Amino acid sequence: NTDDDSWRLLKIGIVGFGNFGQFLAKTMVKQGHAVLAYSRTDYTDAAAELGVSYFSDIDDMFEEHPEVVLLCTSILSTEKVLKSLSFQRLKRSTLFVDVLSVKEFPRNAFLQTLPRDFDILCTHPMFGPESGKNGWEGLSFVFDKVRIGADDRRASRCDSFLDIFAREGCSMVEMSCAEHDWHAAGSQFITHTVGRVLEKLGLESTPVDTKGYETLLKLVENTAGDSFDLYYGLFLYNPNAMEQLERFGFAFESLKKQLFGRLHGLLHKQL
Amino acid sequence: NTDDDSWRLLKIGIVGFGNFGQFLAKTMVKQGHAVLAYSRTDYTDAAAELGVSYFSDIDDMFEEHPEVVLLCTSILSTEKVLKSLSFQRLKRSTLFVDVLSVKEFPRNAFLQTLPRDFDILCTHPMFGPESGKNGWEGLSFVFDKVRIGADDRRASRCDSFLDIFAREGCSMVEMSCAEHDWHAAGSQFITHTVGRVLEKLGLESTPVDTKGYETLLKLVENTAGDSFDLYYGLFLYNPNAMEQLERFGFAFESLKKQLFGRLHGLLHKQL
Ligand SMILES: NC(=O)c1ccc[n+]([C@@H]2O[C@H](COP(=O)([O-])OP(=O)(O)OC[C@H]3O[C@@H](n4cnc5c(N)ncnc54)[C@H](OP(=O)(O)O)[C@@H]3O)[C@@H](O)[C@H]2O)c1
Ligand SMILES: NC(=O)c1ccc[n+]([C@@H]2O[C@H](COP(=O)([O-])OP(=O)(O)OC[C@H]3O[C@@H](n4cnc5c(N)ncnc54)[C@H](OP(=O)(O)O)[C@@H]3O)[C@@H](O)[C@H]2O)c1
Repeated sequence: NTDDDSWRLLKIGIVGFGNFGQFLAKTMVKQGHAVLAYSRTDYTDAAAELGVSYFSDIDDMFEEHPEVVLLCTSILSTEKVLKSLSFQRLKRSTLFVDVLSVKEFPRNAFLQTLPRDFDILCTHPMFGPESGKNGWEGLSFVFDKVRIGADDRRASRCDSFLDIFAREGCSMVEMSCAEHDWHAAGSQFITHTVGRVLEKLGLESTPVDTKGYETLLKLVENTAGDSFDLYYGLFLYNPNAMEQLERFGFAFESLKKQLFGRLHGLLHKQL
Repeated sequence: NTDDDSWRLLKIGIVGFGNFGQFLAKTMVKQGHAVLAYSRTDYTDAAAELGVSYFSDIDDMFEEHPEVVLLCTSILSTEKVLKSLSFQRLKRSTLFVDVLSVKEFPRNAFLQTLPRDFDILCTHPMFGPESGKNGWEGLSFVFDKVRIGADDRRASRCDSFLDIFAREGCSMVEMSCAEHDWHAAGSQFITHTVGRVLEKLGLESTPVDTKGYETLLKLVENTAGDSFDLYYGLFLYNPNAMEQLERFGFAFESLKKQLFGRLHGLLHKQL
């Protein structure tokens, strides 16, 4: 993937220039790619600072013919956003990529909505502005080449896009969207759930923090940095999330039973 | 505290030579202290390996007149263990120290049970065999000089004991036992609770672990290394633990309400 012959600079149009879109753009610009961006909100200033060409009209951006369109909008707004796009302004050979934290849902939406000629790459960088702030070395990047045209130009364009992450040292994990969602519900969704529960407790640093407690404080910081929309998207659009939420509840109830059961036993002995 | 004039080697008798007692003994021996140990279970071999003199009869150990008796038994067995000790075999000037993860409870038990002449130091090293396996630098050591005789010899003996931890780089935190329990319920007990809940979920490493998920896996490993007796002791003998357990439950319920509330809203809009 990182052999230099096939690798080339890309013209990438980002749709959704919020927290995560800006985070990805920074590295793409650093690598020399031409990065264009559009978002619902006006991010002209942020884009200028990052060296990104900002468009307040998405049709203007599409008429620049980005070879890669990178969807960085929230999970929840996916259908609405997809419906609003004028695909006919893009070249027929466009590569469509998403970075949503759930994968089967955008995969199906893309297959249903995008013109047949478009290539489709579904990805999930398993890191964000917090965990990836000191570089992406060793962090996982999951991808599924859902539909990549057979000719060399299309195949190498897809590889060039993947190389953005490979070059930064990401651990590249090729995996079906369904498999991703299965693993992510038991790991990422549970992690966010713990972070959100602890956030509600309003944990604070004490004069007697243990190492374990410090990792919890850090977890709250990381998950609280993400939007609640993102968490709600994980819950709503990962078909395995509901079951994991239930399992978490059962585990807590079972722990309480263990504690109170012993307490009861103790009292009975004393009576 | 680390001034070398007052510092001297101590003869320390450990009562309760399980997981934590052995962990502490290793560093004490390394520093040159004479370490004696007694436990309910026979730990002759483990003691020999650590350079600790093991006694299967506690009276034999007490007749060696350790200047410091270090209680490393479980929280739950404290009353039973204290009742079983023949204090009259020890010198009247003995310094009694405990390392229980709750503090008001052993403080009160010591004040009620120990001969008036004994010195009392209540401590809680805020680390264990896992978090302290690569040294104690920067880890917190909480202590409360509950009753230390005024004469120089007693004062300096207590300081010599504290120096064991100061010399290893521990961050020394002097704090009342009540204050400790207040802070620890909101931090350590919550940390153990999260670890125990997650342990029940049987989390496993996946091909798509995020950094956050990795810290959760590590937390489970750390808390599962401790006995359930220890966790139950935190619950039963920290007067603030019950409230923290309830708050954790409320936080989870409130998160679920947030998720399901939005789901409901969404459904209503569609109907
Ligand atoms: N943050 C992370 O660590 C991370 C990691 C991996 C993947 N992801 C994925 O990256 C995507 C973006 O995540 P994020 O962290 O930036 O937060 P997010 O809350 O999931 O998404 C925010 C983005 O979605 C756009 N958006 C939201 N509602 C919209 C609507 N109704 N119409 C049009 N645009 C809308 C926002 O546009 P405006 O800002 O213009 O309003 C913004 O660009 C998500 O799909 C997420 O799952 C995030
Ligand atoms: N582990 C840690 O990270 C840590 C950190 C700070 C403080 N502490 C404190 O250190 C103490 C020891 O902790 P631990 O990790 O070793 O595990 P623990 O399960 O809390 O205590 C085990 C010790 O208690 C003794 N014991 C248990 N029940 C007894 C009984 N009925 N009669 C006599 N002895 C009994 C055991 O003796 P036998 O082994 O001989 O059966 C063993 O020495 C606890 O008070 C704990 O709160 C632990």
